[in-house]
Parts: sequence; structure tokens; C-alpha cells
Amino acid sequence: MVVKVFGPSYASCCRKVLVCLIEKEIEFEIIPIDIIKGEQKSPEFLKLQPFGVVPVIQDGDYTLYESRAIMRYYSEKYKSQGTDLLGKTLEEKGLVDQWLETEGQNFHPPIYILIMQLVFHPKLGLPIDDKIVKESEEKLEKVLDIYEERLSKSKYLAGEFFSLADLSHIPFTHYLVNDIGKAYMIRNKKHVSAWWDDITSRASWKKVLQL
Amino acid sequence: MVVKVFGPSYASCCRKVLVCLIEKEIEFEIIPIDIIKGEQKSPEFLKLQPFGVVPVIQDGDYTLYESRAIMRYYSEKYKSQGTDLLGKTLEEKGLVDQWLETEGQNFHPPIYILIMQLVFHPKLGLPIDDKIVKESEEKLEKVLDIYEERLSKSKYLAGEFFSLADLSHIPFTHYLVNDIGKAYMIRNKKHVSAWWDDITSRASWKKVLQL
Repeated sequence: MVVKVFGPSYASCCRKVLVCLIEKEIEFEIIPIDIIKGEQKSPEFLKLQPFGVVPVIQDGDYTLYESRAIMRYYSEKYKSQGTDLLGKTLEEKGLVDQWLETEGQNFHPPIYILIMQLVFHPKLGLPIDDKIVKESEEKLEKVLDIYEERLSKSKYLAGEFFSLADLSHIPFTHYLVNDIGKAYMIRNKKHVSAWWDDITSRASWKKVLQL
Repeated sequence: MVVKVFGPSYASCCRKVLVCLIEKEIEFEIIPIDIIKGEQKSPEFLKLQPFGVVPVIQDGDYTLYESRAIMRYYSEKYKSQGTDLLGKTLEEKGLVDQWLETEGQNFHPPIYILIMQLVFHPKLGLPIDDKIVKESEEKLEKVLDIYEERLSKSKYLAGEFFSLADLSHIPFTHYLVNDIGKAYMIRNKKHVSAWWDDITSRASWKKVLQL
């Protein structure tokens, strides 16, 4: 069964899911949703995803949304196919969950605001709030300091294996490094910088960037 | 092995973990951390939880933080002991994860701000920002409208079974209903109101309130 992924392939939350599906060697088809035109708020789309955001997947008659939930589902369903993204033991999986939650609760909120303000506000003709940008950068810097400490002790966030916890950071950090002149936030940290080079050198991410 | 839970038993994120441990019939011991005095920012505590927030668990030599990660770990480790909080199939578990993410990403941010502003700012002598309170209430209202629609079709968020997705909503919503005069946000929605009565009537929650 080919998995249908609803959303534009350039949206960060869709990209997480696509990297995951490629790592797990799962066939997929992208059903484009024009989020600039607001198609994600159409009555038809809201039946799939009541919050009006991408991505959503359909797999036969099974529908699922929230990128981290979709990634968990496929990583577990096809545990032994492609890259194992959850760790070998329940204790390793616990740490994957811990760092995936850390990404969702500590890393994502400030980086999301930074990217919205500095990448999308100009495209949408909205003003940039310098105070909010400054506060978000300071919050993100503190999170990255903790990542630096962690990554000085283990190669990846959850341990010595690449997992959903690392993968989940890639799409938004890609904007930070490449589109808003803030690569220094990664590059001024030795271990975070090496981790970033490692996780973005994966074939799955390169493929997603070409979609 | 008795699980050590570091944190005050009244903190909402600790309460989630405690309800989960009781539902799973797992023995625990609370190691008090005085968050009013700022003990969660002490060098000793930061070794356990570098972000300086509660809860953290220690189970033998295994340490884990982030309440949702801790709940997932124990729900999976003791799948067949106590209440099954993850669903019977991978597809049910996918929906539990979807609604647990929805709680973390959509429900938690506005309710956290509301509770901080209206419960804790007065206790800490900080001013209340009426504009932020109004915006947060509006955001939370929209989320609850979607919950009302969902709960008109299934008894619990992820389906016909009580799960981590429901449990995770209890502690913060308890403040909303009981401490800041906003019970109407739950009570003006028929299905959300019935769901709230159901999930808070569980013995596990009553026990946590008495700790």
C-alpha cells in the first residue's frame, strides 16, 4: 500500500515525515496542498485534519496526523525494515521519546517563531517583530547549549544511534542554517556542529531536498 | 524496583506521571523538589534534568525526564499490567500518539499560559497580562471546539478506550475548572464536559489529589 502524504514537500513538518518514510523504505505519494493559497483550511481538508495544518497521511483507510505521531507509527510498524529509528531496547526508546519531547517542547517553539518571523513574514508582507526575534534566539541558544553538553557525551541525542529524535530537528534547523544568516548558532558549538553535518549528510535528507 | 519520582506532587507535569504509575500499578516514591525555592535549578538537580524542570524519574540506574516520555515508557514496559493506556493495535496506538501530540502542541501552550498568568503570577507577585490571557483563552477555546466535535464521535480522544492522550489533559485542566473561574470553557461543551467528568472520576486521579 502506497502511503499518501498530504502537504507540500517543502513544509518542514512534511519533510520530517518524508525523511522518516525514506529511512524506513516505505513507498509514498505526495498529494500537494497549497498552503500559501490556504488549501489546508478548506472544508475538505479539515475533514482529514481539523486543526487545518499539514501533514496528514492516509494508508488504506487509516488516517493519521501530527508529524511525530506519524513518524512513531511507521518506525514501530516497520521496526526491522530500513533504519531502526527507535533504538534496540525499551530504555533506548525511552531516551528517543525524551529527546523527541525535548524537540517538541523546548527546541521547536523558539525556532518556529524565528523561522516564521524571518522567512515567512517577509514573503507574506507581514512586519518582523525584532523583540520577539531576539527573545526567541536567546531561548534557542540556551537549548542548544544543553544540546552541546549532551552531544559531547553521545554521538546522537538519544545515544550512539541516529533516531527520530535527531531526524525531527533537521527541517527547521535547515532554515536556521541556510536562510536567515544564523548558521553561527550551530557552528559556534563544536559538537552540535558535527552532529548537524552528520545528520544532514544522510541520503534521505538529500532526497527530500530534491523533491 | 520502586520508581523514584523527583518533583512536588502538586506540579501538573508530575501529576501526569503519578496518575500513569498508579494506573499501571507501579510502586513509586516521591522525592520532593521545592520548585518555589528553585531547587530544580540547583547544580545537583541539573545533573538529572539539564533544563531544570520537573519531573524526572530514576528506576535503578535508568534516568528519564519529560512527562510524556516517562508515561510512554511505563505504559509500554508494563503493557499488560494495570490499565492499558496505549490501545490494542498499532493503529490505536497511532491515534493515542496523535492526540498526545495534539495535547502537547495545541492544548498545552495556551492552557499553560492561562494557568501561569492566573494561578502562579499572583502567588509570585508578578503582574497579570490581560491581553495574553485573552489571546490564550481564545486559542484554547478553538482547540476545545475541535475536541467537542471529536468527542461527539468517540468516548475518549483516541477511541473507545481511556489512554495517555486523555490522562495527559487532566492536571492542567483541573486548574482551569477549579482555580481560575473558567469551568464554563469545559461546561459549555456537552461532550467535553461528559469526558471531563469521566476521566476525573478515576480512582488514580483522586489518589493523586490526596498526595
